[in-house]
Amino acid sequence: MLINCAAYDNGSKIADISIEAISDYLKRPGCFVWVALKDASDDELTVMQEEFGLHDLAVEDARHGHQRPKIEEYGDQVFAVVHTVEMTPTDELRIGELNIFVGSNFVLSVRNRSQQTLLNVRERAEREPHLLKSGPAFVFYALMDAVVDRYFPFIDAIETDLEAIEEQIFEPGTSRANIQELYALKRKIGVMRHAVGPMIDAVHKLFSGRVPAVCATNREYFRDVFDHLQRMNGTLDSLRDTISTAIQVNLSMVAIEESEVNKRLAAWAGIFAVATAFAGIWGMNFKNMPELEWRYGYPTALVTIALACWILWRRFKRSGWL
Amino acid sequence: MLINCAAYDNGSKIADISIEAISDYLKRPGCFVWVALKDASDDELTVMQEEFGLHDLAVEDARHGHQRPKIEEYGDQVFAVVHTVEMTPTDELRIGELNIFVGSNFVLSVRNRSQQTLLNVRERAEREPHLLKSGPAFVFYALMDAVVDRYFPFIDAIETDLEAIEEQIFEPGTSRANIQELYALKRKIGVMRHAVGPMIDAVHKLFSGRVPAVCATNREYFRDVFDHLQRMNGTLDSLRDTISTAIQVNLSMVAIEESEVNKRLAAWAGIFAVATAFAGIWGMNFKNMPELEWRYGYPTALVTIALACWILWRRFKRSGWL
Amino acid sequence: MLINCAAYDNGSKIADISIEAISDYLKRPGCFVWVALKDASDDELTVMQEEFGLHDLAVEDARHGHQRPKIEEYGDQVFAVVHTVEMTPTDELRIGELNIFVGSNFVLSVRNRSQQTLLNVRERAEREPHLLKSGPAFVFYALMDAVVDRYFPFIDAIETDLEAIEEQIFEPGTSRANIQELYALKRKIGVMRHAVGPMIDAVHKLFSGRVPAVCATNREYFRDVFDHLQRMNGTLDSLRDTISTAIQVNLSMVAIEESEVNKRLAAWAGIFAVATAFAGIWGMNFKNMPELEWRYGYPTALVTIALACWILWRRFKRSGWL
Amino acid sequence: MLINCAAYDNGSKIADISIEAISDYLKRPGCFVWVALKDASDDELTVMQEEFGLHDLAVEDARHGHQRPKIEEYGDQVFAVVHTVEMTPTDELRIGELNIFVGSNFVLSVRNRSQQTLLNVRERAEREPHLLKSGPAFVFYALMDAVVDRYFPFIDAIETDLEAIEEQIFEPGTSRANIQELYALKRKIGVMRHAVGPMIDAVHKLFSGRVPAVCATNREYFRDVFDHLQRMNGTLDSLRDTISTAIQVNLSMVAIEESEVNKRLAAWAGIFAVATAFAGIWGMNFKNMPELEWRYGYPTALVTIALACWILWRRFKRSGWL
Amino acid sequence: MLINCAAYDNGSKIADISIEAISDYLKRPGCFVWVALKDASDDELTVMQEEFGLHDLAVEDARHGHQRPKIEEYGDQVFAVVHTVEMTPTDELRIGELNIFVGSNFVLSVRNRSQQTLLNVRERAEREPHLLKSGPAFVFYALMDAVVDRYFPFIDAIETDLEAIEEQIFEPGTSRANIQELYALKRKIGVMRHAVGPMIDAVHKLFSGRVPAVCATNREYFRDVFDHLQRMNGTLDSLRDTISTAIQVNLSMVAIEESEVNKRLAAWAGIFAVATAFAGIWGMNFKNMPELEWRYGYPTALVTIALACWILWRRFKRSGWL
Repeated sequence: MLINCAAYDNGSKIADISIEAISDYLKRPGCFVWVALKDASDDELTVMQEEFGLHDLAVEDARHGHQRPKIEEYGDQVFAVVHTVEMTPTDELRIGELNIFVGSNFVLSVRNRSQQTLLNVRERAEREPHLLKSGPAFVFYALMDAVVDRYFPFIDAIETDLEAIEEQIFEPGTSRANIQELYALKRKIGVMRHAVGPMIDAVHKLFSGRVPAVCATNREYFRDVFDHLQRMNGTLDSLRDTISTAIQVNLSMVAIEESEVNKRLAAWAGIFAVATAFAGIWGMNFKNMPELEWRYGYPTALVTIALACWILWRRFKRSGWL
Repeated sequence: MLINCAAYDNGSKIADISIEAISDYLKRPGCFVWVALKDASDDELTVMQEEFGLHDLAVEDARHGHQRPKIEEYGDQVFAVVHTVEMTPTDELRIGELNIFVGSNFVLSVRNRSQQTLLNVRERAEREPHLLKSGPAFVFYALMDAVVDRYFPFIDAIETDLEAIEEQIFEPGTSRANIQELYALKRKIGVMRHAVGPMIDAVHKLFSGRVPAVCATNREYFRDVFDHLQRMNGTLDSLRDTISTAIQVNLSMVAIEESEVNKRLAAWAGIFAVATAFAGIWGMNFKNMPELEWRYGYPTALVTIALACWILWRRFKRSGWL
Repeated sequence: MLINCAAYDNGSKIADISIEAISDYLKRPGCFVWVALKDASDDELTVMQEEFGLHDLAVEDARHGHQRPKIEEYGDQVFAVVHTVEMTPTDELRIGELNIFVGSNFVLSVRNRSQQTLLNVRERAEREPHLLKSGPAFVFYALMDAVVDRYFPFIDAIETDLEAIEEQIFEPGTSRANIQELYALKRKIGVMRHAVGPMIDAVHKLFSGRVPAVCATNREYFRDVFDHLQRMNGTLDSLRDTISTAIQVNLSMVAIEESEVNKRLAAWAGIFAVATAFAGIWGMNFKNMPELEWRYGYPTALVTIALACWILWRRFKRSGWL
Repeated sequence: MLINCAAYDNGSKIADISIEAISDYLKRPGCFVWVALKDASDDELTVMQEEFGLHDLAVEDARHGHQRPKIEEYGDQVFAVVHTVEMTPTDELRIGELNIFVGSNFVLSVRNRSQQTLLNVRERAEREPHLLKSGPAFVFYALMDAVVDRYFPFIDAIETDLEAIEEQIFEPGTSRANIQELYALKRKIGVMRHAVGPMIDAVHKLFSGRVPAVCATNREYFRDVFDHLQRMNGTLDSLRDTISTAIQVNLSMVAIEESEVNKRLAAWAGIFAVATAFAGIWGMNFKNMPELEWRYGYPTALVTIALACWILWRRFKRSGWL
Repeated sequence: MLINCAAYDNGSKIADISIEAISDYLKRPGCFVWVALKDASDDELTVMQEEFGLHDLAVEDARHGHQRPKIEEYGDQVFAVVHTVEMTPTDELRIGELNIFVGSNFVLSVRNRSQQTLLNVRERAEREPHLLKSGPAFVFYALMDAVVDRYFPFIDAIETDLEAIEEQIFEPGTSRANIQELYALKRKIGVMRHAVGPMIDAVHKLFSGRVPAVCATNREYFRDVFDHLQRMNGTLDSLRDTISTAIQVNLSMVAIEESEVNKRLAAWAGIFAVATAFAGIWGMNFKNMPELEWRYGYPTALVTIALACWILWRRFKRSGWL
C-alpha cells in the first residue's frame, strides 16, 4: 500500500508526485524522491524495482520478509532491513520489518507487518531543510534512527520488570512466579538482541572504513545510531547476565527454603516421635509395671512427656531448626 | 552413479553428452559442462579426475566423505563440501554430503549418502538462461543455495518443538518428558550447527576480499547464501541459548515441585503424628486415668483429636503448605 | 552551573575570564581556555556550542545524559563521556557523567548528576606548569585520570566484601545471607564494568594507531589511563568469575547441609521407629504372651529397647550420619 | 636411539648412511637426508645439532619434552612439536611427542615417550617418488599427517562412549555410573584438545600468509592436515558441549528421580499413618467405647482401615504419586 | 636496597661499580650497566631515574607497585612489570613484582615484595659470555625467563592437588572437603592467570611485528618465554575448566548420595511402619478378636510381622533401595 511519494530539492519538498512521475523527477539534477510503502504487494514492488532499478535479490528479501537486520550494497545502491518491535496485547514482543532502499537520488521504505507509522519522520525531516538538504543519506539515517530509538522503551520495560523480580527474589514462596517471569524476560531479551545485534555490525560499515558513496556525507549521524545500538546491546548483555544469575539465585533460594522446611519437619517429627515412644512404652501390657499403679502415675507421665518434648523443642529452637 | 551430464553454451543446454565426450566440449570456448554424480564409485571419480584435472586431495575427500563443510581452492579450481540434511524415519537428522568441483568451464557435483535429488536445480537453472549465462559460478551458487535452503524446515521444526516444550515447562509433572525432549533438540541443533557453522566462513571468502576467479562474477549471489547461513546461525545460537535456559528452568521446576511435595508431606505427617500421639497417650495402661472412666470420655477424645488435627490443617492451609 | 572559566598560556593561568570573553582568548595564539560546568542548563550548553563550535550530536549527548562511556571525534574536536561513580547512602553505586569537549585551544567539562568536585584536578594541573604547557590534551588526560582513579576504592570495596563472604561461605547456616550479598556484589560489578569496559576501547584509540591530533602529544599519559582501566577490568573479570563460582559453591553447601540434615533425620527416625515398634509389640493384647507375666519383664523390655536404640545409634555415629 | 638414517635424491633413497656421512650428503645439491631418532639421548641430540646446525632453544625443547604442540621458525629451519596419543592399558590417554626439525636439505624426527612406530610413513613415502621428490617439505607433511590421522580413532572412541552413556542417561538408577563416565570422557577430551588445539594455529601458518620457505611447495598438503585438525576440533567442541549438557541432564534426572521417590515415600507414609492412627484410636483404654463390644467390631474395624488405605492408595495412584 | 651494580663489556663483567660511577660507564661505547635493587626506596628510585633518564610514569609504577604485568615502551627504553609468585606459610600464593627498565646500555631491575633472589640469573649470565655479549636484551630475557620458569612448580602443585581431589570425588562423604579444596584451587588458578595472562600479550610484542629496538636481537629467546607462558596458560585454562566440571560433578554426587539416603530412609521407614501397623492392630481393645485367644497367637503374630518385614526388605533390596 502506498503511503507517501514526494520529490525533494535542496531540502524542501517540491511536490507530492504519482508513481508514474517518479522517473521524471529522478532525471532532474539535485532532486530526490522519497517513497513509503506499507505491506507492499508483489505488484507494487515490481513497479518500484523498475522505477529505481533495484536488484533482484534485494527485492526478493523485501518480498519474503523474515530477514535478519542487515545493510547490503548492490552496486551504488544500499539495501537495509531493520526490525521494528511492537508489543502485542498479550504482552509479547512482535517483530516487523522496515526495508529501506537507498540510491543517489531516491529513498524507498517498505514497512511490513508493523503498525508503527513513520509519518513523523517525514514531518521532522521536512522541518529541518538544512539537514534534509544532504539528501537520501539523511532520510536513511532519519528512518533508521526513528526505528532504533523506539527500541529503548522496550528495553527499559525489561529493566523495570527485572528490578521488580529482584525485589522479591529473596522473599519465600515466590520462586515459582519468579522463574516464570525470568524465563519470559529472557525471551524478550532474545527478541531485542536479535533486532539490535546484527544492526551493530551493519551500521558500523556506514561510518568506518570504506563507506558506501550514498552514505558518505552523514558519517557522524550513522555513528550516532551505532552508539545507540551499542548502548542497547550493552544493556541487553548485562540484563541477560543478570537474568542468568537471578535464575541461579532463585534455584538456590528454592534449595535453601527446602532445606529450612526439611529441618523444621525433622524437628517436629522428632518431638512427636518422642511423645509417641513414651506413650507406647507405658501402653505395654507387662504385668509388673509399678508406675502404672501409682496414684499420680498418669499426670507424672504426662508431665514427663511434655518435659521431654519441651527440652527437644528448645534445643531445636536454639540451633535454628524451628 | 551418473545422474546427468550436459554441455551448456550462452545459458542454454546444447546437448546431453556422454562422459567420453566431455573433453571435446571442454575445448570449445564459451562452453561449459555440468556433470552430476550420486554415490560415485572409485572408478567414476578416477575418470572425472582425469577429465577435469582435479587435485588428488580434493578427489580423496570426495571419495572418503565425512568431511566438514568447506570451500577450498586448488589452483584455479574450487572444491566445496556442503552437508545435506535429511530426517530419518526415527526422527533423527542424517547428514550427507554434496561435493562440488568448479572450474572455469565445468561443474561436477557428487552427492553422497543423501536421498535429496537436485534435478530441480538443473531445471530451474535451465529456465533462467540470463543467469545460467554467467557459467559455472551460477551453477555453483544454485547448488549451494538449494542445499542450504533445505536447512530451513529443519530449523523451523526445532523451533516449533521448542515452543511446544516451553508451553508445558511450567506444568507440574512434565519435567521428565521435557528434559528428554530438550536433550534431543540440543542434539539436533548440534547437527545443524555442524552443517551451518563452517559454511559461513567458507562462503564469506566467495564474495569478500580475494575472491576465487571462477566465482568473481556472482558475488552478490554468494552473499545471499551467506546471509541465509547467518540467519540460520543466529537462530541456532538463540535456540541453543534458550534450550540451556530451559534445562535450567526445568531443574528449578523439579526443585520447586519437590519442595512443595515436601511441604505437603510435612504437613500431613504432622497432622497424623498429633492424632497418633493423642491416641497413644490414652492407650497407656495407667490405673488412675480418670478421663477413661467418663461416660463421654471416648467421644470427647475423638472430638479433641479431630479438633487438634483440624487446627493444624487450617494453619498449614493458610501458610500455603497444603 | 558555571564552576570555573580560565585562560591559560604556556602552562600558567593568565586570567579567570567571563564567558563573553572566551572568543577573545580563543583567538590569541598559544593560549587555551578551560571551562567547567556542572549540571549545565540548556542555555549554558547552547552558549558553549556557539563559543566553541561544538557539534550538534555531541551537545545533544551532553544534554540528554545517560550515555555509555565513549570517546568520539567530530572533525578536529574530541568529545568524551566518562562515568563518575558514587556511593549512595543506601550502599548502592550511582552513575553520573563527565562530558569533556576538547579542541585545539579549549577544554570544556560538563559534570552531570555527580557530587564529585574536580577542583583538585585544576589545582594540581596549575601546580605543574611543565605538564600543563602541553595544553588541552594534558587537561583532558588529567580529568579522565582523576575520574578513573576514583573507581579504585569502589573495586577495592567489592574485593573486601567478597573476601568477607568467602570466609563464611563454608560455615553452616549462612547460605541465605551469602547468596543475597553475592547477588548485590554481582550488581555492583555490573555497574563498574559498565563504566570501565567501554572506556578501554575508547582510550586505546588515544595512544595507538591514528590518534586524534589534539591528543597526539600525550600518548604515554593516555596509555597510563588505559593501563589503569585494564587493571580494573582484569580485577572485575576475576571478581565476576569468583562470584559465579561462589554462587555455585553456596548452592553446593546448601545441598551438602541438607544432605547431612537428611541423614540425621533418617537416623533419629530409625531409632525412634525401633523403640515404637518394640513397644507396639509388647502392647498387643494376645492372651498368651509369657514375657508379660515375668517379674522382670518390664525392666528387661526397657533395657532391650534401650539396647536396640543404642546399637543403632552407635552404627549411625560410626557411619557419620549422626 | 637411532632408527633410521638415509639420503634421498630426486624422490628415491640413494643410500642408508651412517651419522658420520651426513655432512657429506648435505653438501650434494638436490640431495636430502632423513634421520629418525627415538627417545634420543643427550649425546645423540648434540651430534645432530652439530650436523644440521640446529638452534639451541629447539634442541633444548626436544631434550626436555613436555612441550605444547607448536611449529617455530629458526632462521630458515622449521621446528615442530606434535603430540602423539596412545591408550594405556588402564584406558587412559598418554601423550608423547614427535619433534621434527626441517631444513632445506634434511628432516630429523625425534620421537619421545611413544610406542608408535613411523616406519610406515617412510615406506609409503618411498613408494611415492613423485611426491617425495618435493623434498623435506613432503616428509614433514607425511610425518605430521601420520601422527594427526592417528587421533581419529581416539576421538571416535570418545564419541562411541558418549553415545552409550546417552542411551542410558534417562534410565533410572544409572546416574552415579553416568557421572563417573562423563567425567572420565571430559578428561579424555581435554587431552585430545590439548593435542589438536595448538596445532591448528601452528599448521595454519604453513599454508597461509608468509609461509616458511622450506614448506612453500606443499601448501595444499599442509591445508589438508589443517582441515583434519579443524574437523577434529569441531567434533571435540561439540563433544565437550554435549558432555556439559549431559552432566546437567544427569543432575536433573537425579533430582527428578528423587522427587518421584519422595512422592512415593510420602504416599506410603500417609497410608500407613492412617492405618496406625485408626489402630491407635481403637487401642485407647476408654471404658465406654461401644464398638469394642460389638460382635463384628473387629472385622468391621479391619475393613474400615483397609478401606481408608485403599481410598488413599487410589487417590495417590491417580495423581501419579504411586 | 641496592643488591648489585656492575658494568659489562663484550659479555664479561668489567667491574662492580658504585652508583655514582654509573654515568661514566654509560658513556663508554659497547659497555652496559646492570643494576639490581630490592624494595627500592623513593630516594633510590629518584637517583636511578636521573642516572638512566627513566620516564616519570614508569618510575611511578615501580614506586607504587600492585601493577598488572606489562611491557611498555617509553621512547627507546622498555619498562616491564613481571609478577613473582611465592607460597606463604599458610599455603596461599603471594604476588610480588619485578620491575625491569631496559635501555640500550643498561638494565635496572627493581624487585618488590618478593623473597626470591635473582642472583643466580646474574651468575648464569656471567658464565655464558657469548650470550651476555648481546647486551641488555639478553639480561632482560634472562630475568623474565627466571621469573616465569618459577611459575611452573606452582602450576604443577595445583595439578597434583586437583588430581588428588579427582581421586576422591566419587567417594561418598567427601563432598564438603572436595568443594572447599576446589574453591581454594580455583583461587590459586586465578592468581596464576593474573600473572601469566597479561604477560602473553606483552611478550608477544617482543618478537613479532614491530619489536622495540633494544630487544630486536633476541627475538627467538623472547619467543621461548612466550612459549612457556602459552603452555602455562593452556594448562591453567584446562585446570579451570576441570575445576568447574569437578564442582558440578561434586554437586551431582551430593544429589546422588542424598537420593540414595532418601531411598534407604524410605525403605526402612516403610518396613517399620508395617511392623507398627500390625502391632497397632493387635493392640486394639476389641472384645471379639479370636486370634488373641489362640494358644500360639503371639508367636504367630511375631512371625507374621517378621515375615511381612522380610518380604518388604527383600523387595527393597532387589530394587536397589537398600
